[in-house]
Amino acid sequence: MKYAVIGTGAVGGFYGGKLANAGKEVHFLMHSDYEYVKKNGLQIDSCDGSFHIDNPHVYNDTNAMPQVDVVIVALKTTRNHLLSQLLPPLLHKETLVLLIQNGIGPEPILQKLFPDLYLAAGLAFICSAKTEPGRVNHQCYGSINIGNYSCKNEAIFGQLITDFTEAGIQTAQIEYEEARWKKAVWNMPFNGMTVVMNAQTNQLLSNPSTMQLIRRQMLEVIGAAQALGVKNIDESFADKMIQNTLDMTPYSPSMKLDYDFHRPMEIEYLYSNAIAEAHKVGFTMPCLEMLEAQLMFLQEKNLQKANNL
Amino acid sequence: MKYAVIGTGAVGGFYGGKLANAGKEVHFLMHSDYEYVKKNGLQIDSCDGSFHIDNPHVYNDTNAMPQVDVVIVALKTTRNHLLSQLLPPLLHKETLVLLIQNGIGPEPILQKLFPDLYLAAGLAFICSAKTEPGRVNHQCYGSINIGNYSCKNEAIFGQLITDFTEAGIQTAQIEYEEARWKKAVWNMPFNGMTVVMNAQTNQLLSNPSTMQLIRRQMLEVIGAAQALGVKNIDESFADKMIQNTLDMTPYSPSMKLDYDFHRPMEIEYLYSNAIAEAHKVGFTMPCLEMLEAQLMFLQEKNLQKANNL
Repeated sequence: MKYAVIGTGAVGGFYGGKLANAGKEVHFLMHSDYEYVKKNGLQIDSCDGSFHIDNPHVYNDTNAMPQVDVVIVALKTTRNHLLSQLLPPLLHKETLVLLIQNGIGPEPILQKLFPDLYLAAGLAFICSAKTEPGRVNHQCYGSINIGNYSCKNEAIFGQLITDFTEAGIQTAQIEYEEARWKKAVWNMPFNGMTVVMNAQTNQLLSNPSTMQLIRRQMLEVIGAAQALGVKNIDESFADKMIQNTLDMTPYSPSMKLDYDFHRPMEIEYLYSNAIAEAHKVGFTMPCLEMLEAQLMFLQEKNLQKANNL
Repeated sequence: MKYAVIGTGAVGGFYGGKLANAGKEVHFLMHSDYEYVKKNGLQIDSCDGSFHIDNPHVYNDTNAMPQVDVVIVALKTTRNHLLSQLLPPLLHKETLVLLIQNGIGPEPILQKLFPDLYLAAGLAFICSAKTEPGRVNHQCYGSINIGNYSCKNEAIFGQLITDFTEAGIQTAQIEYEEARWKKAVWNMPFNGMTVVMNAQTNQLLSNPSTMQLIRRQMLEVIGAAQALGVKNIDESFADKMIQNTLDMTPYSPSMKLDYDFHRPMEIEYLYSNAIAEAHKVGFTMPCLEMLEAQLMFLQEKNLQKANNL
């Protein structure tokens, strides 16, 4: 199987790096790090054991890349408008595109542009950051849940699971909607609240008021998922997510980093799409809708500030 | 009628000053400004016409003050624990205590300590600030709604309305619960949101997301008031409050100033009491309960910072 990675950052760099380190053929699309990685390779500092990819296949243009069996998309969803240009050179008839992205809706939205494309969702439970060019810092966790959205080639889908597992990644196959909504239970409260409160996960959980609020927001997501017919998700999942977070080192989710570095935040996929899906079945998430509004306000001020820098 | 003012700040200084300027006998309790005002008098810079009280009756101890017919309490509710000590020297058998304070509950809570005391609520619609010692800056508005909570002496209550009116204050008598809850419709959204978003009223209303959120929060307060049986309040009151705010100059409510100056915020009276009252009749205000939690979190960090200054 040939792999391509679009978006070689904290997440794409880690999973692509793990696959390459296990001997899989991986082709990396790079942006700002292209020259550096071409010369110096890719370094993964990992809690599970660090490693270095000496001569990765790197490109700065998908037109120069080969057709592959699996494309791993690990872009921020704020850049998904680029996919209509980036993907076609990589695709053969049976190519599977795995979207390792946050939020609700990236697969159906992309499917509209590519009706016959095989799509799957990758939900990564990982704490990692790209700390400098060509260097990923993997702090903890790293498991991935993969949900099949529209892949009709069982051989490729199965091989993907096998390859990830062989690369030392804890990989589970779960139902697509379940995968997306379970991730949202963590993402929706913590991404926005760390931005609005200017705090890390542990601070939010050590104050009784915000701890309770985070739980309430998680229950809103679980309520929306249940209203949408998602299986295997109930209140106990909120407690499990809170316990997992308490066990983590203090963490700034990706949206907090985006905000702090004056980059666009993934409000649309993380909040607006989920809220719209819930509204379709008459379910409201008042606290998360409030959080969305607060983020929209901060985004406007933050991007104005970035433009003035 | 003799008046006393406890809490001679932006609000107490303005209303007490207006009464004194109209020739009423007003005794002011001062704290940090005592020496300054004793020497220099009290200056009211007002959009309705500025004036100066040359030799006000000022005190730094209620034990030195005379018994009066009306005590105007314009303390922040965060200092209401002081009233059990401050009030007794000022009271005769028929004294009326007018609480010009924000929030829900100051009268019933004080009534428990003084079961026979005559109490009324004063809801001030005013933009003012104490800008320096002995100087109040009255920017706009200034009307007051007065609601009778437990005053059985109609003569004193009626004279209070007359005196305020004669002093050039637009004064209306309205039903007590209606007065408190109508004020809460403005107070609950704007006080907390200006703190959490670090913004003034106009910024919140110029962004469509927060504009809508403010309106939603207002409807939560109106819903709670209706559930509690408050009359003369419906959705149109939210639109009126938003229009009033759009017509105002950009404004930082008192809670925003308290936060910026690292003073305790009035979370208990403005949020917790209102939320508890609504819960008694099974009504929840999700967005305002979220706002309360965000404020509790910020309060903790803010007072820690103040202690470290």
